[in-house]
Amino acid sequence: MTDQSALPERVAIVGAGVIGAAWAARWLLRGVDVAVTDPSATAPKVVAHVVDNARHAWTRMGIEPEREGALTFVDSIDAAVRDADIVQENVPEILELKKIILGQIEDSVDAATLIASSTSGLKPSVLQADLRHPERLVVGHPFNPVYLLPMVEVVGGESTSSESISRAMALYDAAGMHPLHVRVEIDAFIADRLLEAVWREALWLVSDGVATTEEIDDVIRFGFGLRWSQMGLFENYRIAGGEGGMAHFISQFGPTLSWPWSKLTDTPELTDALTQRIGEQSDAQSGHHTIDELERIRDDNLVDILLALEANQWGAGQTVSKLRS
Amino acid sequence: MTDQSALPERVAIVGAGVIGAAWAARWLLRGVDVAVTDPSATAPKVVAHVVDNARHAWTRMGIEPEREGALTFVDSIDAAVRDADIVQENVPEILELKKIILGQIEDSVDAATLIASSTSGLKPSVLQADLRHPERLVVGHPFNPVYLLPMVEVVGGESTSSESISRAMALYDAAGMHPLHVRVEIDAFIADRLLEAVWREALWLVSDGVATTEEIDDVIRFGFGLRWSQMGLFENYRIAGGEGGMAHFISQFGPTLSWPWSKLTDTPELTDALTQRIGEQSDAQSGHHTIDELERIRDDNLVDILLALEANQWGAGQTVSKLRS
Repeated sequence: MTDQSALPERVAIVGAGVIGAAWAARWLLRGVDVAVTDPSATAPKVVAHVVDNARHAWTRMGIEPEREGALTFVDSIDAAVRDADIVQENVPEILELKKIILGQIEDSVDAATLIASSTSGLKPSVLQADLRHPERLVVGHPFNPVYLLPMVEVVGGESTSSESISRAMALYDAAGMHPLHVRVEIDAFIADRLLEAVWREALWLVSDGVATTEEIDDVIRFGFGLRWSQMGLFENYRIAGGEGGMAHFISQFGPTLSWPWSKLTDTPELTDALTQRIGEQSDAQSGHHTIDELERIRDDNLVDILLALEANQWGAGQTVSKLRS
Repeated sequence: MTDQSALPERVAIVGAGVIGAAWAARWLLRGVDVAVTDPSATAPKVVAHVVDNARHAWTRMGIEPEREGALTFVDSIDAAVRDADIVQENVPEILELKKIILGQIEDSVDAATLIASSTSGLKPSVLQADLRHPERLVVGHPFNPVYLLPMVEVVGGESTSSESISRAMALYDAAGMHPLHVRVEIDAFIADRLLEAVWREALWLVSDGVATTEEIDDVIRFGFGLRWSQMGLFENYRIAGGEGGMAHFISQFGPTLSWPWSKLTDTPELTDALTQRIGEQSDAQSGHHTIDELERIRDDNLVDILLALEANQWGAGQTVSKLRS
């Protein structure tokens, strides 16, 4: 059962694009008050839309909060973060911008307030370099839709205290997530190292005219993507190795790694022509659905997959059970 | 509704490891007679085990064949392939061995018999180079467990006839699969290009001590793996781009591609020490389950995910509906 005492009283969201809005939605549905700030005029609309999506998804999941937290939209970072137990920063992935915003956050909170960045790849050591109290800065890198996907990578920098890591782990656990402490600090952490590898190779396939965006997506969702939703890479390969296990698998397939199959050694140039081709292929693939429709399809599928895994008491389904308790 | 007339009368399986056995299981459950040959003394046991797993999975899926095909185990390639409509070759991934076996298959069938190789990466142009009737050689690359995952990459070589491609597509469709014609012949086709990229990066993470096999698997199955089971890479990123769509997404995240994040430029050396580390980490992660148990967990999860997707009339769920009709 989740320790309700670990729930924060108030969360501040700085930057409310898709990620920030989805963080707000998760905390609100956990009954926690959330203050949001974002300079964009459309941000309140984005947050309202994402919170609506999250309510729909949690209802489908059979989880009805006794009470939602109160959502407040404020005009300044100072007003948003002042009384927060944790500040979640979600501004664009521009190092200098993030450092300025993190400095402004620090100016408005006491030294004990936990500050978490949603950055998908920037090192916390770099983000915290100019802070007066760098020990309370962590990376908390989530996955969209944040109100459904349980993973959050927790990463500390050189100056981050072990207490800050523990607090972040406990808070995200209380949010119903599955926090993973990334013990070694590297650019892009774990997930985006893997995702970048796939993304780069996929761009080559499109650039070389080998496959369209739809063909690549189909190979994933009718093929190995189904495996990965419930077991990862290594556990599937362990099975593939049969009774011989991983060592057998590696001895069998390892050598092919050095064959000149992939184009990993190079980055495809994102020319206007390639960007246009990808856009056109994506339109042909998915353009008959609006983004709103795609979000709903995605969320309904994710909920039903999570429920299936919950019934089997396996993997991400266990986090759903945690939310019920 | 599947065109029953497209079902073959008899399928030959040459090489019955995990992949060959699972091909046999899929065809048997579709009511098609299957002849299997494999020099290993344990092959009949492997096939019986995999067919059992497949029966369990299809029963859980609610699909009860009116009649199963007849399974015959024979001692020679000649006896296995003689009257087959399609021969599926699944011997180890060693080019010279595959070429010898394909030659032996050709010696025993008439010129019209379709020959498909399950190779996960060797080019059909190379495989067919020494055949007398190379036009009927295709690659039909499946994904384990073949009796549940619908994707099969169909690839032709320089000498493959378009009629052979069409026949392979129709046969795999009749098997309840989702065949994808890979239009451009490259090493490793589409899926294994993507998988190799992830695998290589994952090995680096383990080799550098950044993450264990379990941590990497958790990032996948509690995170982006859940997305990939129902939408692929590009459709998810289309949503992430919001109303701005793919072009917006690429302009926002494309530049990070050239940042020096990943170690893609190099292949980690599979030293004994690294192989041992992976084996030990995998044991710590999954060693409390036998391979049999892991197979059952995997299959039960896959079935329930497929049923969830079928209820939503989406993606791989559509292939389940096809099997019912």
